[in-house]
Amino acid sequence: MKETKFNSTFVGILAGGIGSRFWPESRAAFPKQFIDILGLGKSLLQKTFERMQGLAPLHQIFIITSKEYLHLVAEQLPMLPKANILCEPMRKNTAPSVAFFSHKVHSINSDALCIIAPSDHLILKEIEYYTVMNSALEYALNNDALLTLGLRPTSPNTGYGYIQYLEGAAALGVHKVKTFTEKPTLDIAKEFIKSGDFLWNSGMFVWSIKSIMKALDSYQQSMHQAFYSIKAYYNTDQESAYLLKAFEHCNNISVDYGIMEKAKNVYVVPANIGWSDLGSWNSLYEESTKDYDQNVCKSDNVMMYDAENNLVSSNAKKLVVVQGLSNYIIVDTDDVLLICPRENEQQIKEIHQDLKSKQQDQYL
Amino acid sequence: MKETKFNSTFVGILAGGIGSRFWPESRAAFPKQFIDILGLGKSLLQKTFERMQGLAPLHQIFIITSKEYLHLVAEQLPMLPKANILCEPMRKNTAPSVAFFSHKVHSINSDALCIIAPSDHLILKEIEYYTVMNSALEYALNNDALLTLGLRPTSPNTGYGYIQYLEGAAALGVHKVKTFTEKPTLDIAKEFIKSGDFLWNSGMFVWSIKSIMKALDSYQQSMHQAFYSIKAYYNTDQESAYLLKAFEHCNNISVDYGIMEKAKNVYVVPANIGWSDLGSWNSLYEESTKDYDQNVCKSDNVMMYDAENNLVSSNAKKLVVVQGLSNYIIVDTDDVLLICPRENEQQIKEIHQDLKSKQQDQYL
Repeated sequence: MKETKFNSTFVGILAGGIGSRFWPESRAAFPKQFIDILGLGKSLLQKTFERMQGLAPLHQIFIITSKEYLHLVAEQLPMLPKANILCEPMRKNTAPSVAFFSHKVHSINSDALCIIAPSDHLILKEIEYYTVMNSALEYALNNDALLTLGLRPTSPNTGYGYIQYLEGAAALGVHKVKTFTEKPTLDIAKEFIKSGDFLWNSGMFVWSIKSIMKALDSYQQSMHQAFYSIKAYYNTDQESAYLLKAFEHCNNISVDYGIMEKAKNVYVVPANIGWSDLGSWNSLYEESTKDYDQNVCKSDNVMMYDAENNLVSSNAKKLVVVQGLSNYIIVDTDDVLLICPRENEQQIKEIHQDLKSKQQDQYL
Repeated sequence: MKETKFNSTFVGILAGGIGSRFWPESRAAFPKQFIDILGLGKSLLQKTFERMQGLAPLHQIFIITSKEYLHLVAEQLPMLPKANILCEPMRKNTAPSVAFFSHKVHSINSDALCIIAPSDHLILKEIEYYTVMNSALEYALNNDALLTLGLRPTSPNTGYGYIQYLEGAAALGVHKVKTFTEKPTLDIAKEFIKSGDFLWNSGMFVWSIKSIMKALDSYQQSMHQAFYSIKAYYNTDQESAYLLKAFEHCNNISVDYGIMEKAKNVYVVPANIGWSDLGSWNSLYEESTKDYDQNVCKSDNVMMYDAENNLVSSNAKKLVVVQGLSNYIIVDTDDVLLICPRENEQQIKEIHQDLKSKQQDQYL
């Protein structure tokens, strides 16, 4: 698959996330991006990597992850050169990940175009996705612009960034961003949706290496300097030692807060690409094929009696029998069983906290 | 513990039952009597055996079971002489079990007193139990009588035998039985309870070996003859071959239908002994210690949020998290997870049938 017109495209796939919302299926030692959560025979990371091969040559695709997941990435993407797995020495949110990747790319090709993509999202409409990405890449090639893919909101979700854009496309379907609001309150999110000119920030970014280096220098100067100062050690034996020093200097901050909200040259490309961040069991339920009773069963070995609208995830060897229960999430792993109403899935975070406070880390 | 006055007492513990009502905890290969269903550190069979050691010497206690459970009985009761495990060659309900046991005992001591006891019942008041049993044994010693322990009904259960007794004790708190009705309809069961002079048949019987041999000869003549005819082979190498022949001649019938309903010399001893037949998950729930939210957890590793009146049975290593669910039975075994409302537990039989019809015998 070769869907891009731009040979200088470099891709950074963010795969260091630890997320707890798919607990107990996702675990600290095996987070969501490494799981075949949709039952497609491939993990979300593998699906993302496959998709990115339509936009950049293999050796220009990088995975940014943490040391503890290095073996998982190498296992799941055996064709990827080992040097393309960038291991962060500590977790410091997405801005340092992007800075690390950008400096690395800059040392290879200072005329590069860059795509930043999460490793655990679902994109159903790939043709539309490639079309939108090529527009964004073309715009980034010719303009000093930080672009993000924007998605039409379907609910007043308070976990996303909201982008208000200007009517009238600048070019190539790209719109200038008017305001950028990360994680609004519920009331504000509702207002945003009512007004009609807000999109969700997808966390998928496109820019030239020049533009992102400039933005880092303007808005995350100490972070930028930290990576700049260790430039001589990239791709040497001493890289990891110096990398640790650089990360110690970084603020713990996201790209959205640290750059996109601050920058003036932010653009959005509205995208209708069949997107879901699969951010929770409920969103997985929504995206999955349902049976006659609107149940989603992630195993063939489930018997339902008088049961509707449930999501059941279990090991295929286990027989799950559900009688007289509707609208629940039922997740059965080797060592944890979770039963929770679909509408209360935010409780999973509380459960997580409780396990932490009880020092039952083996279940996290 | 030595609570009996009668050295000639022989006990037959019925431990061949296969029961499906505790599925998936109980399995065809590991039925309820072998499970520590109350979490006491001992199986129901072990508890029954212990109790019976207060009424008869070890070598006079027999376990009547089927071949497939021989190893479980031997494992759980290592102190019991192997010859005291009577293996039935096929399942033919309780009348043949009692006939087999009775002929065996008769060949050892024709003046014996006999106790027949299920292996999977709960008795909380042991002192009262011993008192009642000694009364029954004394009555049986001096009278040609078939006695059963009778329990005050707490619900119009249609699965039990109901005993209407005559006011005015014959002696020793023993009452003559007026009518004996096995498994009435719900309407009739309700009438029985309203009338006030009905008791449940506990399935715990007391009689002399002479009385039961006479009753077998009167009401189950061909069965009686079948065992009588192989008398010469008891305790020989040929016993099992001849036993097979005898069982082939037996009707598939319970003691209650086959003898107690027909006999004229039936007596009942009302007993207040903290009894439950633990016939279902619900009865286990009723008999178990509940936490503040009225949950019964058969494992310490359960976290409940906004959850009441549930029964959770699981492996101690498994973390079970239940959020926003009340009045359910949740049973998690290595290969089966069952979630079912407590009030619908009769559905378990239907589930069992479905598994049979799908030939999923590995789960039964």
